[in-house]
Amino acid sequence: MAEHRVTFDVTETAVTLPTGSLLSEAARLAGVDLNQPCGGQGRCGRCAVQILSGDVRRRSVLRLSTADVDLGYALACQSVVEGDVAVHVPEQEQIERRLTTDRAVAQVTLPAGYDPSLSQPVRRLYLTLTPPSMDDQTDDWSRLQRALRQEAGSASPQISLTLLRKLGRVLRQGEWQVTAVVDTKPASAMDGRQAAPILIELLPGHADVPIYGLAIDIGTTTVTVWLVDLLTGNVLAQAAEYNRQIKRGEDVISRIIYASKNGGEGEMQMLILTTINTLIDRVCQKTAVNGSPQSIVKATIAGNSVMMHLLLGIPADNIRLSPFVTAVNQSPLFTAADIGLTIHPAALVDCLPGVASYVGADISAGVLASGLNDSDQVSLFLDVGTNGETVLGSGEWQVACACSAGPAFEGAGVRHGMRATSGAIEEVWINGRTYEPACRVIGGGPPRGLCGSGLISLLAELFLTGILDKRGNINLSLDTPRVRQGEQGSEYVIVWGAETVTGDDIVITRVDIDNLLRAKAAIYAGFTVLAQSIGFPLETISRVLIGGSFGQYINVEKAVQIGLLPDLPWEQFQFLGNTSVLGAYLALIDCQARERITAIAGQMTYVELSADNSFYEAFTSALFLPHTDLERFPSVAATLTNGLANSGLIAWEGR
Amino acid sequence: MAEHRVTFDVTETAVTLPTGSLLSEAARLAGVDLNQPCGGQGRCGRCAVQILSGDVRRRSVLRLSTADVDLGYALACQSVVEGDVAVHVPEQEQIERRLTTDRAVAQVTLPAGYDPSLSQPVRRLYLTLTPPSMDDQTDDWSRLQRALRQEAGSASPQISLTLLRKLGRVLRQGEWQVTAVVDTKPASAMDGRQAAPILIELLPGHADVPIYGLAIDIGTTTVTVWLVDLLTGNVLAQAAEYNRQIKRGEDVISRIIYASKNGGEGEMQMLILTTINTLIDRVCQKTAVNGSPQSIVKATIAGNSVMMHLLLGIPADNIRLSPFVTAVNQSPLFTAADIGLTIHPAALVDCLPGVASYVGADISAGVLASGLNDSDQVSLFLDVGTNGETVLGSGEWQVACACSAGPAFEGAGVRHGMRATSGAIEEVWINGRTYEPACRVIGGGPPRGLCGSGLISLLAELFLTGILDKRGNINLSLDTPRVRQGEQGSEYVIVWGAETVTGDDIVITRVDIDNLLRAKAAIYAGFTVLAQSIGFPLETISRVLIGGSFGQYINVEKAVQIGLLPDLPWEQFQFLGNTSVLGAYLALIDCQARERITAIAGQMTYVELSADNSFYEAFTSALFLPHTDLERFPSVAATLTNGLANSGLIAWEGR
Repeated sequence: MAEHRVTFDVTETAVTLPTGSLLSEAARLAGVDLNQPCGGQGRCGRCAVQILSGDVRRRSVLRLSTADVDLGYALACQSVVEGDVAVHVPEQEQIERRLTTDRAVAQVTLPAGYDPSLSQPVRRLYLTLTPPSMDDQTDDWSRLQRALRQEAGSASPQISLTLLRKLGRVLRQGEWQVTAVVDTKPASAMDGRQAAPILIELLPGHADVPIYGLAIDIGTTTVTVWLVDLLTGNVLAQAAEYNRQIKRGEDVISRIIYASKNGGEGEMQMLILTTINTLIDRVCQKTAVNGSPQSIVKATIAGNSVMMHLLLGIPADNIRLSPFVTAVNQSPLFTAADIGLTIHPAALVDCLPGVASYVGADISAGVLASGLNDSDQVSLFLDVGTNGETVLGSGEWQVACACSAGPAFEGAGVRHGMRATSGAIEEVWINGRTYEPACRVIGGGPPRGLCGSGLISLLAELFLTGILDKRGNINLSLDTPRVRQGEQGSEYVIVWGAETVTGDDIVITRVDIDNLLRAKAAIYAGFTVLAQSIGFPLETISRVLIGGSFGQYINVEKAVQIGLLPDLPWEQFQFLGNTSVLGAYLALIDCQARERITAIAGQMTYVELSADNSFYEAFTSALFLPHTDLERFPSVAATLTNGLANSGLIAWEGR
Repeated sequence: MAEHRVTFDVTETAVTLPTGSLLSEAARLAGVDLNQPCGGQGRCGRCAVQILSGDVRRRSVLRLSTADVDLGYALACQSVVEGDVAVHVPEQEQIERRLTTDRAVAQVTLPAGYDPSLSQPVRRLYLTLTPPSMDDQTDDWSRLQRALRQEAGSASPQISLTLLRKLGRVLRQGEWQVTAVVDTKPASAMDGRQAAPILIELLPGHADVPIYGLAIDIGTTTVTVWLVDLLTGNVLAQAAEYNRQIKRGEDVISRIIYASKNGGEGEMQMLILTTINTLIDRVCQKTAVNGSPQSIVKATIAGNSVMMHLLLGIPADNIRLSPFVTAVNQSPLFTAADIGLTIHPAALVDCLPGVASYVGADISAGVLASGLNDSDQVSLFLDVGTNGETVLGSGEWQVACACSAGPAFEGAGVRHGMRATSGAIEEVWINGRTYEPACRVIGGGPPRGLCGSGLISLLAELFLTGILDKRGNINLSLDTPRVRQGEQGSEYVIVWGAETVTGDDIVITRVDIDNLLRAKAAIYAGFTVLAQSIGFPLETISRVLIGGSFGQYINVEKAVQIGLLPDLPWEQFQFLGNTSVLGAYLALIDCQARERITAIAGQMTYVELSADNSFYEAFTSALFLPHTDLERFPSVAATLTNGLANSGLIAWEGR
């Protein structure tokens, strides 16, 4: 097959590929980092490049204007190399990454009555062995096993070849006193059988060495790592970061598509590993662990099923193809070396069990953390993240669904959306007469954009003040310069450029509003269909438990006003923050909690929303503010009547 | 530290080392292969090289003549580099390696009544899974587990990350019909708990693929590999080869010393792996397995404790240091990839359990193969190899010891010794009047040397004809050109050069005779001390079971005449060949046999011969032909009387 040279103006070297290769493959080979948030499906237009010379065949020019095409622009993921090609790479839009502020660090307290000596399965055992003699020529490993069994239970412990190789030296160096780091109840053996303890590390003498663990949540958009002292159970440091896979797809479906292409799987695995390992480095730097990640001897990982598959390098294709099945919901126990985490190579990595393709370990862990199954009363658990998973149930039963909300509430897919860090507008109030807004900004400085809670607040205010109609149209006829026709349709200006960090106006566009409406409608439709499916009336739910890292800052009233949450008394809502990482943390410090997560994953019934039309109908009904059926939102109906009366306005209905 | 350049005339490149390094280290770095059968202790003189220029400090010149030292000769393992050095490497004496002849291939028949469906734990299961649907979205691995549990027992099977990664593809490629290769009763979990089956391989469709296993015996001198069809239990091919570690030490102690030096451990591991992998290649070439070692999915390995440690890269130092303990007697189960065997990377490698430092897995396996523990009567089991292990016992109890016989009976350490292959003299008769010998040669052609059975036969004939006295002295005053003073002392010529393959006379020297006497005395002393230690009279033993690959060709009468075996009626002797590989084979094809080996290893009591003086006394008493105490050998005493009477000779007593 003919080979062609492809050169990119941003790198010095040329790469050679066979006829028929894609320009995006050439870019990857050449180390040119193109944004591909749609996963290379030719839908987002973000990977556009300019062909300076040579032959490419454009399979699609979606999102490119005729003028762009005339100038030689082409989508890298849709352009087939058919000769030697020279390519100009436009400056890539940067996906912002900032350090998480203290604001985003959850307050974690140990569970009431927590006693590590009863609950923590990973133990640092001080062992004193009888030295061998001519009367007792027992081999080193049997001698150590004897001492371990006395301390760690009756089952024969497991040892690795690496430890066998250093065993003799360590025992003698410590003069038959050693410190053994042992997982006394490894998770993989929790199907009722007595678990064989696993020896993780062996050190000479009775060493006062620290032992740490990690609780990790791999979100589609955000990855969170907590560093935990296993001797006390205390959280020592937290760090969070955008998932580096975002540039290869904003939602799980795009990621699967990207991964399924030639080489994409390895790249996706590398991207998530880099994200996690960078966060590990960061939590270590914040603490005394700095420079000795070898002290980290265990990790529990929660995350949705797609993230878990991509982390483990397991093809995720069948998750997106009917009938939507994962390769594995309950992984065996791995070591850090198996997976590629830069901690102690023999550290045990416990990938928590998931339920189904779209209800993963983040939800099993989240349900545990939320306390949903601690009560006999029926609660609703919502994980307000990119995937919009919902669980309805009690200690007795749980049903779950996922509704693919998209990342709008995590700040992605919205023009001036951002994470809840310094510079993010987190709350907005709009004057009903002047349409002038007031904002609260995280950190108090000039604003850069809007985080999830700010977007909800803004949407509610725009609606209540009549700037938006119930379909989300902006009333351009209002007497204020803040509503206007922008480049991408109508928009509302929240902050003028003179007062922002960048100097640009911070706006919300009609397109942004559509994305937010779709996200909130998906979530609302999810739990209503779930409740319908088992004939449970939503209004009799005792608690609404809200997870998701931005969840804890939502203003309930505003979220109800836009129809994101059901119209229930505010005291029934609990905002829990990132329940996924909290569940991973509980599994890390408490073997009973770990067993309960397996029980939850085994007990939960998954409801497939795509199975019939009821979800689609519920979704389209919920695409309004707050809903087509205002009777479902009596408190909002009352506010609208009062509010409009107070402001003297009449309801405005757009075209 | 200063660095010096060392050049060897046999290679083109120079190597650089710090002051104080040994010339033998320089040789290893430069890829110069020096023989070091004493393990680099400066005792054998085989690594002598000539210093052409430069500074070396000789720590020892043992075995070098003053003339040699004047010519610049030095022992590489005892010469410290103190400046740039140029070295001449004399031609190295080749350690002979030949293909094992058919003669050496044991006849193996399946155990009576053997039924693989009852006994073979590794199974090739044809599974038909219910395809997933919207009504059954069970994940792939749970779906496969369900099918596996139905076929392979109730416990949850184990899967590797490698198999998880290809699981989805294989299930769909086979349209939900798959072939699973599973070890249903892996050995590591045999401590009474229900073992979790291990999935080794998964193939699409119901594939009529072969599954093979290996039974491996790692002897100090000889390594043996059998290729076994796991579906039938039949042995398909056998191959044996000198252990390539020989050039780094002829006995286990020398090997430990060599391994404990800088880098030696890795080299020893590489040498034994190369030996085994070459033999694997050879058995595959002999059969249809040629080119697909991936079909080999299991291996059981027997071998003495030092060999097992060196194979696994576990330091063996403490085996030779008082109180003589191993790092591990019962290894966990490994995979071929862990160990470095070139078969299916997920193949399970079962290193059989040993008893003590000098009674290893070869003996636990050997006892099983010998049938010693099938009987209530007391038997003696002798493994006539380099290490001379001995077991006395019955089905109820066993005591064991090791007596370090050395490799003389395996053809090493004897001037014209060789293995029992084509060209080896396997039996000798000497005319009591003319002192002229007659020989039987394996293969029938001209002779090259003497194998173990030939050496025993020769020694007995030399003694009975009065050429040797009971101390092993050669009577040079006899009227025959066959006794003479050679370069290394007195010798007897067995075959004149005109009739040999090489053209050189085949002789036995006084030094050879000493080595043979020490070997036979060690073995005899071993079992006598063992019997004494428990107060069991040797003459009441019901059977003498003789293992060791050369054992099956020993002439009992001759072996008794030299005092190697106890003087018992010939019908009580059974020659069993290589009982170690036979035991490994039984463990491979029969999970009950495998469990019995663990039971034997756990039950056997090890008697440490170095614990008191009784072994040394028994050894020195046995250094005679047949023994100082002729009353222990009544049949030999009678033969001597008759023989001498018949031949008309009187007993000759040397100086």
